[in-house]
Order: sequence, then C-alpha cells, then structure tokens
Amino acid sequence: MNTMIRIGIVGYGNLGRGVEAAIAQNPDMELVGVFTRRDPATVDVKSEGVSAYRLDDLISMKGDVDVVILCGGSATDLPEMTPKLARDFTVIDSFDTHAKIPEHFAAVDAAAREGGNLAIISVGWDPGMFSLNRALARAILPVGEDYTFWGKGVSQGHSDALRRIDGVIDARQYTIPVDAALSAVRAGETPKLSTREKHTRLCYLVVEEGADKARIEQEIVTMPHYFDEYDTTVEFISAEEMARDHAGLPHGGIVLRSGKTGLSEENNQIIEYSLKLDSNPEFTSSVLVAYARAAHRLAEQGEQGCRTVFDIAPAQLMIITPEEMRATLL
Amino acid sequence: MNTMIRIGIVGYGNLGRGVEAAIAQNPDMELVGVFTRRDPATVDVKSEGVSAYRLDDLISMKGDVDVVILCGGSATDLPEMTPKLARDFTVIDSFDTHAKIPEHFAAVDAAAREGGNLAIISVGWDPGMFSLNRALARAILPVGEDYTFWGKGVSQGHSDALRRIDGVIDARQYTIPVDAALSAVRAGETPKLSTREKHTRLCYLVVEEGADKARIEQEIVTMPHYFDEYDTTVEFISAEEMARDHAGLPHGGIVLRSGKTGLSEENNQIIEYSLKLDSNPEFTSSVLVAYARAAHRLAEQGEQGCRTVFDIAPAQLMIITPEEMRATLL
Repeated sequence: MNTMIRIGIVGYGNLGRGVEAAIAQNPDMELVGVFTRRDPATVDVKSEGVSAYRLDDLISMKGDVDVVILCGGSATDLPEMTPKLARDFTVIDSFDTHAKIPEHFAAVDAAAREGGNLAIISVGWDPGMFSLNRALARAILPVGEDYTFWGKGVSQGHSDALRRIDGVIDARQYTIPVDAALSAVRAGETPKLSTREKHTRLCYLVVEEGADKARIEQEIVTMPHYFDEYDTTVEFISAEEMARDHAGLPHGGIVLRSGKTGLSEENNQIIEYSLKLDSNPEFTSSVLVAYARAAHRLAEQGEQGCRTVFDIAPAQLMIITPEEMRATLL
Repeated sequence: MNTMIRIGIVGYGNLGRGVEAAIAQNPDMELVGVFTRRDPATVDVKSEGVSAYRLDDLISMKGDVDVVILCGGSATDLPEMTPKLARDFTVIDSFDTHAKIPEHFAAVDAAAREGGNLAIISVGWDPGMFSLNRALARAILPVGEDYTFWGKGVSQGHSDALRRIDGVIDARQYTIPVDAALSAVRAGETPKLSTREKHTRLCYLVVEEGADKARIEQEIVTMPHYFDEYDTTVEFISAEEMARDHAGLPHGGIVLRSGKTGLSEENNQIIEYSLKLDSNPEFTSSVLVAYARAAHRLAEQGEQGCRTVFDIAPAQLMIITPEEMRATLL
C-alpha cells in the first residue's frame, strides 16, 4: 500500500520550485513530476529522479497523482487552469486577486463537483494565513477593529510597474508599514488610517545611462493606484548594487485585531499575527503543501467541491495524529 | 423558529461573568441562565431578566439550552462536571491542565458518545489559540523550532502559592518574558533556552505588620517548581498599592516558530502570534463563546463525541456565512 501523497506541480517558477523544496521537508509526500507549458527538455527539475512533462501529458498520469498544486499566476493562468484541472484532479492553488475570489470559487466549485473532486483555492499567506487570522480574531472579538499591514517586503506587482517606465532597466519596490500607525494600534488605539498613514513605498531603480531621473521619479510618485496615494521614496542604484543587495524576495506583514471585552467593554484585548519571511514564494509554497495534505485527506473521505482555508480543520494539515496533537501541542 | 443559540453558564466566577459579557456581544446568542452550586439567591446575575438556578436544576431545562459552557476550575470541577454534563448536553470547557488533557478527552468523549452529544474541551488561549498556532506553524514549517513565551501577566497559580506563605496577606505574581531570548528568536536564531532564560517572575506582596521579610523572600525564591528555576524579584507593597495598581488580571504571550525553507534550507521564515490582554478571563471567555457557536452547529449536524480546537474549521466559529467570508475576509 502506497501511503505517500503523490504531488504533481504545474508551473516551475519561484512558486513551483518552492513547492518542490517544501515537499522534500514533508516525509509523507513525494513529487511525481513537474508539468509545464514550456518545452520539458528545457526544464531542469532539481529533485533527483523527477522529470518535467508537457502539461497536456498530465491527464494521462491521472492514476499516479493524488494532488495537483497549481503554481501559475492569478492574472491569466489560474482562472483558466484551476477549473480545467479540477474536473480530473484534487487541486490546490494560491489565487490571490482578492476581488475576484467569489467568481474563481464558483468556477472551481462547479468544475470540481462535475468531476467529483475536491479543490482548495487561495491558499498562501494573503489570501491564506492572514485571512484565517482575520476570521479567527473577528470571531473571538466581535467588537473591535481589524488592521492588516504588509512588509517590509518586495511587492512584485509594484516592481513590475516600475520596470515598465521608459529608461528603467531594473527595479525593486519595498512596501513598508508606518511605525507610528503600528504603534498606535498595538497600544490599543483604534485609529482610522488612510492609505498614506499605513504604508510607505521605497523604490530602488537601475536606469539607462543619461536617463532623465527627475522625469522618472515624477512618473513614479504620480502613478495612479500604485504610488500616488503613498509617500514614495526613489533611489537610483547601480546594477551591481541591485544584484548584491536586492536579489531576494523577502516579505511579511502583520494582522491585528484590537477588541474590547467586558460588560461595559472596558478591557482592551489585542491579537497580533505576524510573518517575517526571507522568501515570500517559498512561504506561500509551504502553506500550499500543508493544505495539499488536507485536500488529499478530504478527497479520500469523498468530499467534493471547492474549499478555502476557512473550511479546513487544522488537524487536517498535520502529519501527526489527533492523539499526538492533543498530547504534545494542546 | 428560534435561531438564537441558547447558552447555559455553569459557574459564575471570573470566567462565567466573562462568558456572560461575551454572549452580549454576539447577536446570535442568548443567555438562558446561570447554574451554580451556591445558593442561587446569593448570585446576582448581571444580565437583565436572567436568573441563577441550582446546578441540579439544569437537567430539567434540557430542552431550553443548546450549549452548556462550563466555567469551573481544572483541578477538581471540570474533570467531574464536563463528562457528567456531556451525557445530556452539548458542552464546552476550558480544561487547562496540559498533562491531563488526553485523560480528560477520553472521559468526555466516552460520555458524549454515550449521550449522542458533542463536546469541545480545552478551549481558551493556552490551551486554545496558542495550541492552534503551534499546530498551524508546525504544519507550514516542518523544519524549525517552536517557542512559547507567557506574559507579561498575572499567574493566578503562582499568586495563590505566594498567599499560602506564612505572614503573606495578599500577593500578585507577574510572569515576564526575557527580552534577550525573545529578540534572539525574532532575529531568526534558534537558541536552546533554559527555563531561567525564557521568563522572569516578579512578586508583589502585602505582608503582616512585623513579618520577617527576609524569611518570606527566601521561601519564595527557593520554592520548588514555582520559583526555584527562575530569577525572581520580590517587592513588598501596601494594601493600598495592591488595590490601586494590581486589581486587574492582564496576561498574554507569544507563540513563535522559526523555520527554514528552500532546497538547501537557506531561508529563515518566522511566524509569530501574540496576545496582549487586559483581562485574561474575559479573553478565555470570548474564545469559549466563539467555539460554543461551532459546538452548536456540529451538534445540529449530528456530530458526536469530543473535539478540540484542532478539529474545528474556522468557518464554524463565524456568525457570517462562508460566502460573506470569502468576499470580505479572504
């Protein structure tokens, strides 16, 4: 009897490679293959004895894969691929376009039910563990205020926006929580905070020789949605400095709930959840892999349709038994 | 159709009064009565229109109560009362003697199954939300180290131990995390920490006139289990200072997991969950009430036996629907 959970990875960018690394840390899981839209011959899978396959070949390996972890992007990949694969596989993704989650959920739920499969979407840290903590904190402290701060960390969307500016060769954008706002919330105040009061943005740019730095900086600080509502700092650096100091993808953030309890609501109660991540994609991958265990167990129990982190009991994520959990972790 | 969840409180100390206050913050719940082993005529229930009853009368009100929240102590009350009441009611308790949880679980599980009921035990913050966070963090980061720090806060067990010393009139003991240890863990180090390196203990004492303070202090710092393994500070204060500065029951603490990810486990990832509580019992009560909602829903679905926080999906705690959760919290 094969008791290992057999995982297929779809997509082999930062997230896919992070999932591969996370599987190696979980002794009840094995990587069956990496499935890609690129030419498999050009994909060098790190894990010994594991091959890359064409995405179209995945369906022919249906009996060999317990859970498919989708590691594509939320803009165009996942809205199409997750419902498509949910017809034939237990699937899990990290769809993170918050506004479109209900729509994505409906599409994946319909496809999974059609195929009699189980799917979990929007797994990672935000959406994911941050969402879970927002929910738990609100359930415990119904009278109170929520705050989510992101950073310090690299925003890939904002870095991409900078790279699209004429004259910019490379860019890295760090989102940074404003200390004063964070301190106020931690002190039990419940301030109304504007966008500008919560985060600042720090941009490092490598530009073409002779580029008009004043024009570039002006384009950045006035860029709608991305920068115009923030206090933004722009620093011009060399390609060497970029490679030396900004190669990683650190991130993190803080979810706070500041609530009141007591018959006269006289007592402050503060719940804080924070992440400090050297690698944003690897952490998301680690969360995906833990929830892949839950997806497999629920599928084995015959459950069907789409789920989110809200629907999964914590025990389903754990490699140890409920008995061991009660004896060692409770 | 009555859609309100009807709660009975057993025991009306700090915890029971906290549950009463928390019910008032949850619009889908109502307090049916307070059940006590004292003379009900001596119990002044704060909520308008709610009475105190003899504990023995609870069974006769079986049809009027959806969930019984047990608010007794873990030393002698809960080991007897939770299994007894689980035969007839959906019950929930905050049993917190960590070493005896498996034994308590077995007794409650057997009784609940015998009666066809659902029970949730060891709900609060430790055991409870801290346990949940230890489990989630370990599932996500299987390679790493756990750290739990308590305080700054009042330990009632240690305060009671101080009050038993000859010559002591009143006492309050604060448990305090050691900053250096906390900073090291937050910086990504994974130190092995002795008991002494993790927490210090600060004692405020009101003593009888003419009491031998040197003898009392010596008794404290050498007291086995409670103080001998810690750096303990003893301060003698007046009864007025005690009443003015130490009337509350603040507490809190921090659960950290420091893990590694990546194919060479080269990246640090830190998950931190912390609580800063003005009122320890009221926070425990608020967690109990949120899980009472889950207990009621699971019982309505026909589930039977004993559960812990590990077994409950977060959506079961929420007053809003899964659709609303996905649209607003994910």
